[in-house]
Amino acid sequence: MPYRPLFFKGGVLYLLDQKALPSKVLYKPCRSASEVALAIKDMTIRGAPLIGQAAGWGLYLDCAKVDDEKKWPSVLKKTSAKLIASRPTGRNLRAQVEALTNLVGNNASTLKERKRKLLSYLIELENNWEKITDKIAFYGAQLIKPHSKVLTICNTGRLATLGQGTAFAIIAKAFKLGKIDHVYALETRPYLQGLRLTTWELKQAKIPHTVITDGMAAHLMSKVKISAFLAGCDRVAANGDTANKVGTFNTALICGHFNVPVYIACPKENIDAALLSGKDIPIEERSAQEVTHIAGVRLAPSGTKAWHPAFDVTPHHLITGLVTEEGVWDPNN
Amino acid sequence: MPYRPLFFKGGVLYLLDQKALPSKVLYKPCRSASEVALAIKDMTIRGAPLIGQAAGWGLYLDCAKVDDEKKWPSVLKKTSAKLIASRPTGRNLRAQVEALTNLVGNNASTLKERKRKLLSYLIELENNWEKITDKIAFYGAQLIKPHSKVLTICNTGRLATLGQGTAFAIIAKAFKLGKIDHVYALETRPYLQGLRLTTWELKQAKIPHTVITDGMAAHLMSKVKISAFLAGCDRVAANGDTANKVGTFNTALICGHFNVPVYIACPKENIDAALLSGKDIPIEERSAQEVTHIAGVRLAPSGTKAWHPAFDVTPHHLITGLVTEEGVWDPNN
Repeated sequence: MPYRPLFFKGGVLYLLDQKALPSKVLYKPCRSASEVALAIKDMTIRGAPLIGQAAGWGLYLDCAKVDDEKKWPSVLKKTSAKLIASRPTGRNLRAQVEALTNLVGNNASTLKERKRKLLSYLIELENNWEKITDKIAFYGAQLIKPHSKVLTICNTGRLATLGQGTAFAIIAKAFKLGKIDHVYALETRPYLQGLRLTTWELKQAKIPHTVITDGMAAHLMSKVKISAFLAGCDRVAANGDTANKVGTFNTALICGHFNVPVYIACPKENIDAALLSGKDIPIEERSAQEVTHIAGVRLAPSGTKAWHPAFDVTPHHLITGLVTEEGVWDPNN
Repeated sequence: MPYRPLFFKGGVLYLLDQKALPSKVLYKPCRSASEVALAIKDMTIRGAPLIGQAAGWGLYLDCAKVDDEKKWPSVLKKTSAKLIASRPTGRNLRAQVEALTNLVGNNASTLKERKRKLLSYLIELENNWEKITDKIAFYGAQLIKPHSKVLTICNTGRLATLGQGTAFAIIAKAFKLGKIDHVYALETRPYLQGLRLTTWELKQAKIPHTVITDGMAAHLMSKVKISAFLAGCDRVAANGDTANKVGTFNTALICGHFNVPVYIACPKENIDAALLSGKDIPIEERSAQEVTHIAGVRLAPSGTKAWHPAFDVTPHHLITGLVTEEGVWDPNN
């Protein structure tokens, strides 16, 4: 059985605590929307699709306790607001909570029916993500040649997404098919998702791997034949320009020099057809402290300014293919 | 008065403790070669030219105490061996200690004369480095255009070298001439010399600066017009291929994409004419723990493999100019 980043059992939502990883595997039980909102706020869980789904379960937890028809609308309203406020910039989160409230906002059905609707929706969504990521893994693994050594960035496995993950699902599938000999994981500063979480997921999957710092990619490619660079994405413009964790653009440029193909694992819902190019994708800037402090220790002189764009945009001409659940899209053809 | 990474006063060698930086400015007094050897071993000081010079002072400290002609040869021999063993891979260190022992190894002069010889040699060497780095700063600053924003890597100021530093000396000179508006410092994982030490030196020099992670260079250049990338070097081959801190090759490739000139500050003694190309430069691999652990905390899962090449080699075709004390060398012309 693979680990799951969250699961619902006996009326309780269990969240795999990503702050305790990789040193400890702990599941935090949540029995109310407030507990879920806190877990999202304090980074117990992260990853846009994952926090969206967790918020959905949070809504269900509070709604399931309502036995009085009159209280339903106010519980729905208060709980939704609380969950949306837990990470205000999260798009999946707001969308998920709003989809659920729309689903059960009217009083045409019984309380019991509405609760069942919420539950089925949440379960179906998780099953659907399993299918989507299974297909991404299938199409992506076809691109990987036997005896490959591949490079990846950030954390794209089950921990970050629903289902099997994105780029990580391709790696795991290709490994099962005997095509991957070794994975190099970029540590992915500032938040170190590669060093802390991707290594942990690779370890669980028993895939041989080595972590390197983000500045070592060119040196690695000058010494080791890398078959492919595999990354996830946060948002893709209509022309294929891809916003992903900062460092992806750097690495794609280096891949260009070494003729290493760049594959982006991309669920179709990440493609924003309304955006003509990457110039239109807003880039979130996060706290400078995540650069100047590591493991709770300030390493820079006091008052040092740091810049922390959380994402960058890789231009489509550097991307060999975007792997969706419907096949591979070459943005340059 | 600028801070000094070491100074000799009243028979005592004072070392600026680089482990205490940037949170504290402490000078560690050394009264014997053993104390100096320990300071080199435990990384109180780092930087190849600097530890070479410190070892020279260590030799002087013990030799200065010898009052009996018969004891001179054995003190010289034991002390040299102890200092050379303090960092066995250091080339400057061994060369410096051997140069000094050769200088005073015969008995043709009085003890007093030999001690004076050691002292003059050490003082002259420091003065000479001031002159060399002053000239590098002079030639380098001519390459910087008014209102420049520049990018730098690792730590190349007084802390790392004797004299005024290498790439840092160019930055400081150009800033004094009013040509530099802002400096971006790559944090330089794994050892974080940029985050911890370059920021500290920039702060002392009152030069406006921002630190970024190594993976942010491409995003930075897509948002901000960077006028030049300035780096030091550890060893340069006859064709201009340059070994420097890992991450330099990555960044030079990114500069190529954005047409940002790459300047290497290079004292002539760093050019190894016996090496035809960078392929012949041996790359030191350091402890994986410097990747998996930060600030004493293990951040990767237990047993995670990491690769830690301390340097990389930037091919000469990516380098716009090598700035030496005799002028600027374009390796592609």
